[in-house]
Amino acid sequence: MFQTTASADLAEEVMARCRTLALFSEHRAGTRRTFLSPPMRQVHQEITAWLEALGAKVRVDAAGNLRALYPTEVEAPTSRLLVGSHLDTVPNAGAYDGILGVVLAVALLRGLGRRKLPYAIEVVGFSDEEGVRFGMPFIGSRALVGRLDEDLLRARDARGVSVRQAIEEFGLNPAAILGASLADDSAGYIEFHIEQGPVLERLGLPLATVEAIAGQSRMEFTFVGRTNHAGTTPMDLRYDAVAGAAEWIMAAEGAAKTVPGLVATVGAVEARPGAANVIAGEVRLTLDVRHRRDEVRTRAVEELTLRARQIAERRALSVRWRTLLDQQAVAMDPFLCGQIEEAIRKAGCEPHRMVSGAGHDAMIVAEKIPSAMILLRTPGGISHDPAESVAVADVAKAIECGLHLLDQLASAAAFQARTPRA
Amino acid sequence: MFQTTASADLAEEVMARCRTLALFSEHRAGTRRTFLSPPMRQVHQEITAWLEALGAKVRVDAAGNLRALYPTEVEAPTSRLLVGSHLDTVPNAGAYDGILGVVLAVALLRGLGRRKLPYAIEVVGFSDEEGVRFGMPFIGSRALVGRLDEDLLRARDARGVSVRQAIEEFGLNPAAILGASLADDSAGYIEFHIEQGPVLERLGLPLATVEAIAGQSRMEFTFVGRTNHAGTTPMDLRYDAVAGAAEWIMAAEGAAKTVPGLVATVGAVEARPGAANVIAGEVRLTLDVRHRRDEVRTRAVEELTLRARQIAERRALSVRWRTLLDQQAVAMDPFLCGQIEEAIRKAGCEPHRMVSGAGHDAMIVAEKIPSAMILLRTPGGISHDPAESVAVADVAKAIECGLHLLDQLASAAAFQARTPRA
Repeated sequence: MFQTTASADLAEEVMARCRTLALFSEHRAGTRRTFLSPPMRQVHQEITAWLEALGAKVRVDAAGNLRALYPTEVEAPTSRLLVGSHLDTVPNAGAYDGILGVVLAVALLRGLGRRKLPYAIEVVGFSDEEGVRFGMPFIGSRALVGRLDEDLLRARDARGVSVRQAIEEFGLNPAAILGASLADDSAGYIEFHIEQGPVLERLGLPLATVEAIAGQSRMEFTFVGRTNHAGTTPMDLRYDAVAGAAEWIMAAEGAAKTVPGLVATVGAVEARPGAANVIAGEVRLTLDVRHRRDEVRTRAVEELTLRARQIAERRALSVRWRTLLDQQAVAMDPFLCGQIEEAIRKAGCEPHRMVSGAGHDAMIVAEKIPSAMILLRTPGGISHDPAESVAVADVAKAIECGLHLLDQLASAAAFQARTPRA
Repeated sequence: MFQTTASADLAEEVMARCRTLALFSEHRAGTRRTFLSPPMRQVHQEITAWLEALGAKVRVDAAGNLRALYPTEVEAPTSRLLVGSHLDTVPNAGAYDGILGVVLAVALLRGLGRRKLPYAIEVVGFSDEEGVRFGMPFIGSRALVGRLDEDLLRARDARGVSVRQAIEEFGLNPAAILGASLADDSAGYIEFHIEQGPVLERLGLPLATVEAIAGQSRMEFTFVGRTNHAGTTPMDLRYDAVAGAAEWIMAAEGAAKTVPGLVATVGAVEARPGAANVIAGEVRLTLDVRHRRDEVRTRAVEELTLRARQIAERRALSVRWRTLLDQQAVAMDPFLCGQIEEAIRKAGCEPHRMVSGAGHDAMIVAEKIPSAMILLRTPGGISHDPAESVAVADVAKAIECGLHLLDQLASAAAFQARTPRA
């Protein structure tokens, strides 16, 4: 059906294209490309040219998503498989997070060599997943599932521009948002993405499939003690918020280590007044807890709030907390996961099933249609950084896996294009 | 010799005077009075008027210290006792730290009722102890011991004004700094100061004498791990600088709790990048360690650097540190301490000997002449804050103690004024 050498060539091209697209940035020093910023138009133009050369019909929907339809071998009505990821980046980004999934989708069409399948393929490049410009992620994929609502359209960026205005300024029509919804014949969504973690590298495997995207709790804890003189206050007469917070950070790490698959992170710590010679009267910390099973995550959060209360009580501190985010886990489609595992095996790799600790567009699209992901090994687990990378050999394996998957799905009932009605 | 009612009246006046002087500030919202700032001149004028009315001869030396000589009963040459504290404040200060010691010295002269002693009394109001304006403390007392050198004169404040320029702008002559040195007949220095800690309140005692001012180590520690995604990095593949730092904060607290009189404080904690969903790659912390015995303090610092190294090694982090301050402990004069204890007893209080964890002008003056301190109970241990206070009854006890002390010293050989030569 296709040659390994062909996948190696395609992988080389994918790498080169990702590096080229990384140059389309809001500033010259690095890559930053947020929702409908000027460089997004250049990215659209580049990818559109590649897709049109392959016979796809390309449009930009009212939410700024690039949508390209590669036709089926039969006449409409069809069913269609969506393949894609996001085109936006974090500030000071690497060249692969998100956009690799779009460029890989183009490579799969290239790999088909103008061959048509019994279903259509829609390549999607989402306009916003990172949420950098408006502080709210998934603007692009929300539009596909009908959740780009008035509230979100009213959100404003740092310059006071609303999502609605940004869409208009880009030359799109916010009144046509409904036209960005998933087509009725959408039968599944596949997303390639870098792992952004160290697991595959540890296992020595290039690819994995995702069985679930972890649920996430994000909280803020504040320990309050009493500001005192560091020199004149004996150890047993202190109400040291830093010491209380440190004890609780240890508890959070310890709790997460005892539960398989649980991660708990204290990423931000701020002590006040924050002077060397003053016992801190207040410490604010963030807590990020994730697990594939919501009840495990909820139990961990409850345990850590209890521990915070106990530690504060014993130290005569007070503690308060608030929940910033409580996002449920999202299961990926078991049928598609199984198909991906088979395709990974056919590409000569050992398949690995894992939970994605990071959120992805697939999490949103899964609200409406069967969705699944293929993760690529990420050297050093480094992402959201100019040092982010991916091995060309792993990209080749991803392309082989993707082409096998497309062929497998050709015989799956859901992806059979219906015979046109008379 | 004097009446308790008199000391109560004097104490009322001391409180009122401190509150009045707190109004002389660089801004109207609170009290902030740094080295030779405009309100310092008003403070000089007020205190000068009080002292001149008592028959003292007042000058402002070239380092901006208020110096008032209350004469002896005999003709020169005399010996003299210095009594004082500092006139400057921290930003957003209370009404008593420092200035209470100067106003109390004035009250002692008032309490003498124009009676002369066999030694002279020099009231000193130091121009700078807190070091707020130039980031270097003890400008005033350094001048008395001959250490206001060229380096210090060249130091600049936030506006780029040097110590030398500040002295000139205030109308003083930096070339006359030598004239600020202690007079040859200076036989001792006594400083009243609020405790700034909770110990006397805990013990239910109004007054204490200080046997030593603790030595102090101030250091900065930096734990370096690896910035990673909080969702995609399993617990066992993390290099979490926050977790390492927290473990070490616990170690520092634990170490200090096992050694009597040792205090160790981590007052500032800064995690980078400091985002909720990112494992911190770097944490910077301050460490403040104090003890009356330098070898105990040094051993504690060594132990905590070793613990930092061990924790970092076990977690595959790195750690570095630097010393910001290494100040030796200073013993107060045993003879004066004994005299103060006796005077406290005569004032009807139980004397308590303690180590001052805070630095004071007495620490500097002790380089040249016997020095000692009397600490006043500080409600809630609160200082360097508008809520800082002192009980009028405790001030009365301090005045009684001070007047007893002056009388006791009248019979001590060192404080006997020499008979004028023929």
